[in-house]
Amino acid sequence: MNKLGTVNSDIGVGIIGAGLQGGRRAPVLKQFPGNKLVMTADIRVEIAQQLAEIAGGVATKRWEDIIENPDIDVVMVCTPPNLHVIMSVAAMNHGKHVLCEKPLAQTTKEAEEMISAARRNKVTLKCGFNHRHHPGIKKAKEWFDSGTIGEIDFVRCVYGIGGRPGYEKEWRANPNIVSGGQLMEQGIHAIDLFRWFLGDFSEITGFTSTLYWDIDPLEDNAFALFRTAKGQVASLHSSLTQWKNVFNLEIFGHEGYIIVDGLGGGYGTEKATLGKKAFFEPFKDETTEFRGGDDSWSEEWKEFLSAIREKREPLGNGFDGLEAIRLTNAVYQSSSTGSTVKL
Amino acid sequence: MNKLGTVNSDIGVGIIGAGLQGGRRAPVLKQFPGNKLVMTADIRVEIAQQLAEIAGGVATKRWEDIIENPDIDVVMVCTPPNLHVIMSVAAMNHGKHVLCEKPLAQTTKEAEEMISAARRNKVTLKCGFNHRHHPGIKKAKEWFDSGTIGEIDFVRCVYGIGGRPGYEKEWRANPNIVSGGQLMEQGIHAIDLFRWFLGDFSEITGFTSTLYWDIDPLEDNAFALFRTAKGQVASLHSSLTQWKNVFNLEIFGHEGYIIVDGLGGGYGTEKATLGKKAFFEPFKDETTEFRGGDDSWSEEWKEFLSAIREKREPLGNGFDGLEAIRLTNAVYQSSSTGSTVKL
Amino acid sequence: MNKLGTVNSDIGVGIIGAGLQGGRRAPVLKQFPGNKLVMTADIRVEIAQQLAEIAGGVATKRWEDIIENPDIDVVMVCTPPNLHVIMSVAAMNHGKHVLCEKPLAQTTKEAEEMISAARRNKVTLKCGFNHRHHPGIKKAKEWFDSGTIGEIDFVRCVYGIGGRPGYEKEWRANPNIVSGGQLMEQGIHAIDLFRWFLGDFSEITGFTSTLYWDIDPLEDNAFALFRTAKGQVASLHSSLTQWKNVFNLEIFGHEGYIIVDGLGGGYGTEKATLGKKAFFEPFKDETTEFRGGDDSWSEEWKEFLSAIREKREPLGNGFDGLEAIRLTNAVYQSSSTGSTVKL
Amino acid sequence: MNKLGTVNSDIGVGIIGAGLQGGRRAPVLKQFPGNKLVMTADIRVEIAQQLAEIAGGVATKRWEDIIENPDIDVVMVCTPPNLHVIMSVAAMNHGKHVLCEKPLAQTTKEAEEMISAARRNKVTLKCGFNHRHHPGIKKAKEWFDSGTIGEIDFVRCVYGIGGRPGYEKEWRANPNIVSGGQLMEQGIHAIDLFRWFLGDFSEITGFTSTLYWDIDPLEDNAFALFRTAKGQVASLHSSLTQWKNVFNLEIFGHEGYIIVDGLGGGYGTEKATLGKKAFFEPFKDETTEFRGGDDSWSEEWKEFLSAIREKREPLGNGFDGLEAIRLTNAVYQSSSTGSTVKL
Repeated sequence: MNKLGTVNSDIGVGIIGAGLQGGRRAPVLKQFPGNKLVMTADIRVEIAQQLAEIAGGVATKRWEDIIENPDIDVVMVCTPPNLHVIMSVAAMNHGKHVLCEKPLAQTTKEAEEMISAARRNKVTLKCGFNHRHHPGIKKAKEWFDSGTIGEIDFVRCVYGIGGRPGYEKEWRANPNIVSGGQLMEQGIHAIDLFRWFLGDFSEITGFTSTLYWDIDPLEDNAFALFRTAKGQVASLHSSLTQWKNVFNLEIFGHEGYIIVDGLGGGYGTEKATLGKKAFFEPFKDETTEFRGGDDSWSEEWKEFLSAIREKREPLGNGFDGLEAIRLTNAVYQSSSTGSTVKL
Repeated sequence: MNKLGTVNSDIGVGIIGAGLQGGRRAPVLKQFPGNKLVMTADIRVEIAQQLAEIAGGVATKRWEDIIENPDIDVVMVCTPPNLHVIMSVAAMNHGKHVLCEKPLAQTTKEAEEMISAARRNKVTLKCGFNHRHHPGIKKAKEWFDSGTIGEIDFVRCVYGIGGRPGYEKEWRANPNIVSGGQLMEQGIHAIDLFRWFLGDFSEITGFTSTLYWDIDPLEDNAFALFRTAKGQVASLHSSLTQWKNVFNLEIFGHEGYIIVDGLGGGYGTEKATLGKKAFFEPFKDETTEFRGGDDSWSEEWKEFLSAIREKREPLGNGFDGLEAIRLTNAVYQSSSTGSTVKL
Repeated sequence: MNKLGTVNSDIGVGIIGAGLQGGRRAPVLKQFPGNKLVMTADIRVEIAQQLAEIAGGVATKRWEDIIENPDIDVVMVCTPPNLHVIMSVAAMNHGKHVLCEKPLAQTTKEAEEMISAARRNKVTLKCGFNHRHHPGIKKAKEWFDSGTIGEIDFVRCVYGIGGRPGYEKEWRANPNIVSGGQLMEQGIHAIDLFRWFLGDFSEITGFTSTLYWDIDPLEDNAFALFRTAKGQVASLHSSLTQWKNVFNLEIFGHEGYIIVDGLGGGYGTEKATLGKKAFFEPFKDETTEFRGGDDSWSEEWKEFLSAIREKREPLGNGFDGLEAIRLTNAVYQSSSTGSTVKL
Repeated sequence: MNKLGTVNSDIGVGIIGAGLQGGRRAPVLKQFPGNKLVMTADIRVEIAQQLAEIAGGVATKRWEDIIENPDIDVVMVCTPPNLHVIMSVAAMNHGKHVLCEKPLAQTTKEAEEMISAARRNKVTLKCGFNHRHHPGIKKAKEWFDSGTIGEIDFVRCVYGIGGRPGYEKEWRANPNIVSGGQLMEQGIHAIDLFRWFLGDFSEITGFTSTLYWDIDPLEDNAFALFRTAKGQVASLHSSLTQWKNVFNLEIFGHEGYIIVDGLGGGYGTEKATLGKKAFFEPFKDETTEFRGGDDSWSEEWKEFLSAIREKREPLGNGFDGLEAIRLTNAVYQSSSTGSTVKL
């Protein structure tokens, strides 16, 4: 991988899975001169072909073709979660770097296998936590890291969509393919962000429910509370019955607060707001609006290539992927057992 | 009490406690011709005098003067919670109707005593849950009752303020006077509203924390989850470190959602929003803004007088006051024991 | 008037006109220890009595009683515009300081008489332009004066209400009592603010219309454009058919912009926003919310008392009152003649 | 043109001008199966080639190649305004239908020539007023046409951007190429919408100014007022010094109001709001958010193809293009002469 001199170096990319996520990630490559989509694989070969027409390279029905292709340096695994471990490990065993969609795997054990494969093969493994690269969230992290709001008191996040008719027939609703419902599918982004801002958690409680969508035993709503050893609480509601899309992340500290609202597109204009505590003044805060399109995918890709080049762990690495699964599972366990889970 | 022919009948009112809440409730009487503030009691007799000058009647240092005054038909108990039971029961034993501030008492046992006293003396006891009378919340209840959003999937509420310097020295921070922190003091309004919309809960979990204000063992933040037997979840965050005041109540059902944001004044313009689920349309909702002042106090008073006259239970009665304390205590218990509390 | 040592000095106040404006201004006096409402006059003596009960002093039917009362140092003239000149001049001739409602008079000639009377009698005359004392507008002026947005390019203001049934029968709709419609009645506040920010104007054009309310020859809508000698334009829409109350003032300069939205109460929470020009950054601005009640009346009163004490012209003095009428009349002239009016 | 059976029929398209507008319009064709981009012309042939690579067809330096190409049925003229008349007329003389960017021409005389050419050659001429096809504006028109707000009292529009460094060197700032500043370039969309909602105007007044950008004699700000024979006023501010992009169109009628805010992308989420007059109720309105991308270009294209097929005038036809220029010129004339222009 010496040829990865810069993010614009000549590198060959393979994509396994030409569905929604593959279709989002493939066009990003055109923004990086030298990056080349060599091959796209999907068992539904016709959608692999469509993607190849738009984004370049050839299509194949067999994902193994990508693993074995010597022109491919980096593989994006964009398949359902049950396939992540086998495809990612195979790719890493062939010396490829891997960007794998979230959730990183179906189980923590699988995620650990993936991390081992990366270490063993000295390649880079990244989990597709693109939210860390959203402009409002990056801004929030910068503000926080610079000490603007002081020590965190609590974090709140509501992240929800309304699904679409037939959702119960999608693979996302098939417990053989996925290992969790809306929390594992989408809420896991927020859990990763909680860890990014607060570090490790020691106690988890929560309730899940399945009232609208016919997807039991998977949940359509999850309410989860995470507490650090210091006592800071992060609260998440992940919903598939939020009829108007929402992403709202709020971080309150001793000296002020940061709010990220929206993710662009269907979630509304992305905005980052900073307010400082001021007991004797009228409420005041500043807001930055990110009205353009969603560039988190290209920012994430840039970070991944940089990490490979610099031989360092990327933002949102395999361990982050593992921990997010562990925390998600703890919510499920707490909801079903009626006990707070201690980690 | 036959003279209570209408809400504007000649009735004599006594107020015990001339602090913040007494000061809010007293001026309301002027809107009801015939209602007369006869006496205000406070051990700090000078503030009782101030209130009397503004709102009428005489001042006293002894609350017993109010209990014993034959010209007084109705007593408002606006003292700290540790005094509620003794004052309210004494007033009811003297045949007075009582509107007592929230939390109704320090313990469920005390609340039960108060309910018994009301029954025994055939008088009306009301708990000061004025939020049921806020225009946005009333509108929300009407929409919900008319079936607009169908069966509830979940309810969310964030209710928070930022406190003020010296808060740790106020009686609200004194565990001898109060029996809980921010959740018991303010969040209890939301708990009462949860019960109003969802009825009984069967499981409660939550985390409390005390990180900013020096008020341990009382909490400055409480995160609570309530689940009905059907599986519906209500989520509450009650905060004393919310640097910009917020009240936000969201009720999502199978067919749509209702949002109440703001309470006027320091919480911003009160707005009620109704949206219907529509998978194939752009997001759409309607909003009513209540830009005027807060009339919840007079609406609550009117309801109380009507209930007395009609010899029926008022909205937010003694039992509601009792149950809100029980649920609040369950959150405290869950947070400290690490177990979901089953009711 | 030597006794006016501070704004809290013992001074006697008389109010002529106990209607809407008198009712707003009278209660303010209680915030200034030493200020005393001595007498309120209204030909509808019963409303003068009502105001006296609430705010103190005695009531009279004859406004001359106030002029002649030696205990009164300051007179507020809160009557319809056709009475301003006679009452104000009489009061000043008796040595009283006068705060007179806007519009200062029915004509510029009358306004000039009032200014002369003030000079001749060495008393202070103030026009009731309370908007200069709204917290958002004061904040805007501070930002502007500190150079934050640089030289002004343009100013925009929309100020409107929806009237109320029967408006056409109010004195505001009677051309014998008033000398203009919505622009003269309410829009004149914005014109005064335009002058405050931009100074003198040299050209005025505009259109008025009367389409909804049966108040012809008075206008229910006025669109007015004012241009300074430098070419800066201020645009105003003053409306009586704006079904949802709005006040929005926007000041754009070479380096940024200031927006004041809302006036509290029926106009929604008052907010002041500051944004800086930044070609290569996402849009960003800071906002201060003034969620409390409207304190412009007390701030205006404080300024008036300070000006009297300091023997200086107050903010919004007689000349400002005169000029605002002149500019308003120029709009009317332009609309009817089809020519830009040059001043 | 018999082959234009449906909007998805096989038709050949040529684009003259591969700059900003050509780049926006070309990709739309892919949404219409059968529509084929045959050729793109630009004197900067390299950008024509770039567009051809993305959108299909071949590139040429000579616009005449498009006019003369028998495979091309429809021509989009996306060049600066000074070239519109010669290119459009030539295309129509060769039997092509023409969609020409706004402003339709540099002068009303040129616009009339273009209309004549369309009639003479029995082809369809459309002016690129894509705003009529924005979802919020379409919704506004539907609401209005259904009588929801009754007869119009007034219309307001603010439409502004902040320009970009070097603007004074762009062709948009070259008076040899354009015939007006910001009003002619962008504000003309609002003028077209005014005509769509209100029909003909009889009087126009306004002020233009050039204070920030070094583009004199072109204006960077224009304030224009248009009055119908009935007395309805439409007010427009078109700005190149609006540091935060804004598009806000408000239509107020006897019974209610419609507001369109935002155009998506850099103008923020597009929203359409409908409120009804209600004197005795709190303010209430309903809002639809169009969070997706801007589909006005494809909707406009569909309308154009439908009009060709149905042999009818399209929405935003040549006459609309002509009238918008006439009204724009009237604003310029009023500002410079100091007289209201009567049409």
